[in-house]
Formats: sequence, C-alpha cells, structure tokens
Amino acid sequence: MPQAHDRLSPSRTLDDHDLGRRISSRLDDLAALTDEPGRITRIYLSPAHRKAADLVAEWMTGAGMAPRIDAIGNVVGRYSAATCDAPVLLIGSHIDTVIDAGKYDGNLGVVTAIEVVSQLHRAGKRLPFAIKVVAFGDEEGSRFPSTLGGSRLIAGSFDKRLLDEADLNGITRRDALRAFGCDPGRIDDDARREEEVLGYVEVHIEQGPVLEARNLAVGVVTAINGATRGTIDVRGVGGHAGTIPMQLRRDAFCAAAEMALAIERRASSESDLVATVGRIEIPGGVVNSVPGSARFTLDVRSPSDANRERAVADIRAEIDAIAARRRVEITVALGYQAPAAPCDDHLSGLFAQAVTEHGIEVLRLPSGAGHDAMSFRGTWPIAMLFVRCRAGISHSPAEHATDEDIDAGARVLARFLDLVANVA
Amino acid sequence: MPQAHDRLSPSRTLDDHDLGRRISSRLDDLAALTDEPGRITRIYLSPAHRKAADLVAEWMTGAGMAPRIDAIGNVVGRYSAATCDAPVLLIGSHIDTVIDAGKYDGNLGVVTAIEVVSQLHRAGKRLPFAIKVVAFGDEEGSRFPSTLGGSRLIAGSFDKRLLDEADLNGITRRDALRAFGCDPGRIDDDARREEEVLGYVEVHIEQGPVLEARNLAVGVVTAINGATRGTIDVRGVGGHAGTIPMQLRRDAFCAAAEMALAIERRASSESDLVATVGRIEIPGGVVNSVPGSARFTLDVRSPSDANRERAVADIRAEIDAIAARRRVEITVALGYQAPAAPCDDHLSGLFAQAVTEHGIEVLRLPSGAGHDAMSFRGTWPIAMLFVRCRAGISHSPAEHATDEDIDAGARVLARFLDLVANVA
Repeated sequence: MPQAHDRLSPSRTLDDHDLGRRISSRLDDLAALTDEPGRITRIYLSPAHRKAADLVAEWMTGAGMAPRIDAIGNVVGRYSAATCDAPVLLIGSHIDTVIDAGKYDGNLGVVTAIEVVSQLHRAGKRLPFAIKVVAFGDEEGSRFPSTLGGSRLIAGSFDKRLLDEADLNGITRRDALRAFGCDPGRIDDDARREEEVLGYVEVHIEQGPVLEARNLAVGVVTAINGATRGTIDVRGVGGHAGTIPMQLRRDAFCAAAEMALAIERRASSESDLVATVGRIEIPGGVVNSVPGSARFTLDVRSPSDANRERAVADIRAEIDAIAARRRVEITVALGYQAPAAPCDDHLSGLFAQAVTEHGIEVLRLPSGAGHDAMSFRGTWPIAMLFVRCRAGISHSPAEHATDEDIDAGARVLARFLDLVANVA
Repeated sequence: MPQAHDRLSPSRTLDDHDLGRRISSRLDDLAALTDEPGRITRIYLSPAHRKAADLVAEWMTGAGMAPRIDAIGNVVGRYSAATCDAPVLLIGSHIDTVIDAGKYDGNLGVVTAIEVVSQLHRAGKRLPFAIKVVAFGDEEGSRFPSTLGGSRLIAGSFDKRLLDEADLNGITRRDALRAFGCDPGRIDDDARREEEVLGYVEVHIEQGPVLEARNLAVGVVTAINGATRGTIDVRGVGGHAGTIPMQLRRDAFCAAAEMALAIERRASSESDLVATVGRIEIPGGVVNSVPGSARFTLDVRSPSDANRERAVADIRAEIDAIAARRRVEITVALGYQAPAAPCDDHLSGLFAQAVTEHGIEVLRLPSGAGHDAMSFRGTWPIAMLFVRCRAGISHSPAEHATDEDIDAGARVLARFLDLVANVA
C-alpha cells in the first residue's frame, strides 16, 4: 500500500487518527520487506534491511531531511534548525527485527519520527534545534553476538573489535557492512560528535501489558530496567519415588519450587520490580524418581539498580535459608549484570506535559525490555514514550497497535518537540 | 569365589553371620554372570540369565531340591514335605537385573531361600508343607513392555498374548523363550496348580532408607504400595520477563511450583503416603521469558488404596484451587492406577514373631517399589521381609547389604518356616 499516504495532500487538514493511519500504512510497507517470505524477518545488514534502509531514506528525503547511511548501517536524516549553530535532538529507533516479528517493534518509532518531522516540513516550520532521525539496524542482536552496535556508534562507544565478530555463517560484521554498502573504515568519523546534543528520545511499543491494563494509549518511561541474570543449581539426594518416605527426602525439585515461589513473592512485594524463573531442568528426571538435582534460571529487573541489588541479595538469602532447611546444596551463578538507564527528568516531564495536553492521564512506567536508548546512558539525556500494544504481545506476528494509539503517540511526540523548543 | 561356600562343611556349627557370608559369596558368584562385562546387567532370557538360572538350579540340587526351568524361564526347585499330600509354601524373588545393577536386588531373596532350604536339607528336616523356591526372571521389565511374567505364570494370570510382545530388537518373547531352552507351548501346563498353596513369601532388600534410619537389620512389609501416576499440564500466559509486571502475570511455572509444594505437603501429612514430582518441563523455556506453559509428572503411592485415592482427590482439589487463583488452565491426566497388594496378617505376624525372637525390634513398613509378590495379590496370601540396604540405594552398583544383615534375614526366614510349620 505505498500509495496510501499519497492520498493525504499537505493542504488537507488532518482529521482524527489520520496521522496514525499514515504511520500504520508505512509500517505495512516496511513489513513487506523481509528476508523470509510469508513472515517478517529483517536481520541486521541483510538484503531486506538494505531495502528497508533505502525506503526509510526515501521517506526522510520526502520529509525534508538529507539522509545518509553511516558506517555501521544506521540511516540518519537531519532536519535543520532555525539557526546554524543550534544543538541537535536525536529521535530514533530500529528497523531490524527478530525472526518472525511483528510490524511495530522499532519500526513504529522510526516512522513516527519521520512523520512528525514531515509535518514540520510541510508547515515550513524550523525549531531552535536540529532533529536527527536515526533508524538503527542492530537492536535485536539476531545476527552477531553483541547488539546495539548502531546506537553505540552514535554514542561514541562502539568497540571496533566487534567488527571482527562473525555470524552463524562465519561472516564478520566488517564484511557484512561492506556488502551492505558501508565503509567500516569510517567508523571513527561517524563516532565523532561536534555538535551539542540535547538528548535522545524514542517512541516504542510497550511490549508489555501495563498500558492496556490501565486503558491508556501512551505512557512515559521512567527508566530502562537494569537486569541480573544467572542460574541456580540445586543438589539434593535422588532415589526411588516409592521407597523414600517424605520426611527422609532431600528433593532438589521441591527445593527449587520453594525457591521459585520465594523469588516470585519478593518481586511482587515491590512495584516495578520483576523476577522470573524462565527455565528449569531436572537432569534425568523420570516420573518414578525423586529428583536428585535441579537447575533453574533467574532474571531480576528493576528501574533502580539499588532496588535490584537489594532484591537479589534478599533472594540469595531466602534461597540459602530454603537450601539449609531442606538440606540441599546450591550453587548460585548470577554472572550477568546490566545497570538501569534512567530517563531524564526534564525531557520526561515535557513528554508528560504533552501527554496531559493530549487529554491522556500520565502513567510513568519502567521499560522491562532493552532499547537503543540504553546506549546513551551517561552520555546524553534520554526519554522514551511507550505506545500501548495489544495484550502486551511483541516479537510475534500477533504484535498490534491501533491507528488511534499510534496517532496519539505521534501527536504527543510533535507536541513534545514544541515544548522542547519553548524551553530550549 | 565359588569355592568359598565349600569351606563350610555340613558338620561344622554355623558361627555368627556365617550364613550371611555364605549368601554374600553366592551373590558374588551371580554378579559375575553379566551380559555387559564390567558391570552387572542380566536381562530376562539373555545368555547371562541362562547361566544364572543354571547356577541357581545347581545350588537347588545341592540343597536337596529337584529344580526345573519352567515354560516362562522361572527356575523352580521343590523341597518335599514330610507327607505326600501336604500343601506348598512358595518362596521367591528374581535373578534378572536392571542395566548396571547392584548384586542384591532380587538375587538376595533367591539365594537366601536356597540357603535356608539347604540348612533343612543338611539337618535332614522335613516340614509339614513342601517348599517351592522360585527364581523369577522377568521382574525388572528391562526387556519387554510388560513385566512380572514369571510370577504371573505361577499365579495363573499370565496372558499368553504377551508371548507376541517384542523387545527393542524385534525379538518376541516366544522366540526368546525358545532360544533360552523353554517351551512356550507348555505355559498352560505350568499355570495349572493342583496343590494347596499356603502362600508366597519373599525376602528382598528394602531399596529405601527407612531401616537404615531406624537402625534395624530387617523389617516386615505391610503391603506393596498401590500407585497413581500421570501428568499435569499447566497453561498460563507467557511473555517478556522484563515487561510483564508481577501482578499481571499468569506464570505457568510458578503455578506448577505451588502445585508441587501442595503435593509434597499433602503427602507429608500422612505416614506411608508418598508423592513425587519427578519430571517438569517448561516448553521453549528461556531465561528471559515468563513461562506460558509447564508440564509435570505426579506419582502417588500408598499401602492403602483408600488413602491413596483420598490423597489424589485432595491433590486434584488443591491444584484446581491454585489454578483458579492464578488464572491458569490445567489438564490432569492420571491414567496409571495400580492397586496395593496388602500382605497377609497371619504370615506377616509370624515374620514379626521371628524378628522379635531374633532380638530385633519389629518395624512394619510398606514397600514403595513393586515386587513379584504383587502378582499373587488376591490369589494367595503374601508376606515379605525387607533387609536393610546402605543409604537406601538400589538399581546401582553402589547397592549394598552387610553380611550381618543378610544373615539376620536368612535366620528370620528359617525361624519363620518353623513357625509356619508349628501352626500349619
């Protein structure tokens, strides 16, 4: 449906949700660009990614931006400010997808940013800051071991050793970039930043059920959660399910089950904290044996690093106590630690004001999933606006956001830019 | 060490544990007969089983019995009574093993029975009943889909259609019997029983930790537990481990964990009841996803069918309540139901009297594992004597019973025969 947005002439007043419908139509255009016919799969630096980058560049041109594809495969479009030495505001998200993806994850933020800039362009309006819209290509981490390469380049933190990372077919990032048409030799040039950056903002589907549960079209993100992850091994004493009386058992699975419930209880005791046991195994487990060992994973996330660390310490103490009481041994290996990326109070406040002016109650919520915005933690202020998605489903063809909610997201972003302009 | 028991001349008085040492030595002889060099594996109707049957037959001959191998591969030795029309008492256990087995499971009961008859024979003593010692060959079910074929033949309940069952190599039971030297055409003849049977008794290692925990060499079995087995499927709602707040979750694994603890609690509330969750799976489970489904097994056993059925009903009610509260759906499939085989009060009382006379406190305990004795449920009275085994370990090369405990088992069996004789 590439013709759909042509029907909307610049002179016509936008009626309700027209902006949402226009964005939605462009999301359909992007969804048609896939590495796997029949489902949406757009892997970083793949042929479908290249086609999507070209289409996004074309849209940027139409919105009054001069787009280019940088050394790491980002599509970057600049919409100039009213004055020459003005600072820049980055607005981005990603156009790569997981395997068998939905249409909205990442793509929504890119198309929304372009549409909002397009409105400014059609109105001939310049702001006291430039806008750079960035379509990142390496957010999902579906190809190389590391991820967020695109946003890290922009943030100036991309590690060039990652050019030697290989995908499952043995193709290095360096070679994949060259095949995509990029010059990895220009990484340093693209990482250099001489202009003042006001911050990085991103519109994204929530990928969770909170906005739907609260009946809200959009919400303001407080932070991208930090995470602690790892595994817990439980070693009890196995044996015959018929011959070992209950009081003589040292059942590793029952111990693990009690630990999982303690983890659930601790996470539930505090808002914005989540903890998950996503995988469990009883090695060699059979119906008629008492489990002698069990191994399960733990994933703890919070927008507050201090709260997360306190929760992890409490969980460790609780599972130690359970292990001691049940006379089982445990090994706790929580090797993965990622700090939270808090959103900027000022920019988030302006998002909240725009939400309020749009007639929507302001809900502030953390982001449980990771986003490109994390790459700018500690470098520039970040802010994110979430758009409601149906049933919280993401990374699935069932992913859905309504035109009305997409419209609300775009209008809030447009108003946010006005508010930034007023205080800039 | 086949020479070990030759050192014991019939004229010499047995000193402490000599009987145990003699039995233990013969268990070593049997352990040397294996289908897999380096470990004990003696599969039903295998070459090692044939050698073991021949050795057992030789021992029976030495003990004054006229042994024969019946149509299903049982070695049956008859020790005649004082009179012609006397009834018969069956004493048996099995000489087939699991893969990588211990020396004691099954074999202990066969060798103990032969040694006790051997004592009578050496003393020239006849009882008012004949004794038939039976070494069954199909107790472990390691070869064909069905099991207990040997004891079922003796009980008169062997289903001849099972002759067509095939093992993993496609060899039928019928062909395996012929290769073993049996005539499956004689099944009906061997199933016919014209003499009066007083009952079936079996000495067996406990295969559990109760006697060790109570510091007792032997114990009297109350019943072979009945069992209910099956699986429970839990269907919740999966999703992103970061984005779904705890209060909006319908985590299938947390529900399963709570159910497992309810099962454990219910089983612990009643002596002699055991319940086990031996296997659990979270299909597609990964560290960063909330489990959308989980499946676990349940195994419930009790010496009382009524108690087991009540426990299963309580467990079903509890998991229904947990499912309702957690808003997950469950499917409970408890297809396997085996009734308990209660031991005979009179015969068990005589075992208890013999245990007391041996200076051992009488502990009555259920058998959590299955035994050939189950085949005689409802046909003849059954009784079993358990011998302590180290740490409750069985079905493993680490299986162990001391000469002292084996000796106690044999002497209690010998005294039991006297007591049966006195009341017969």
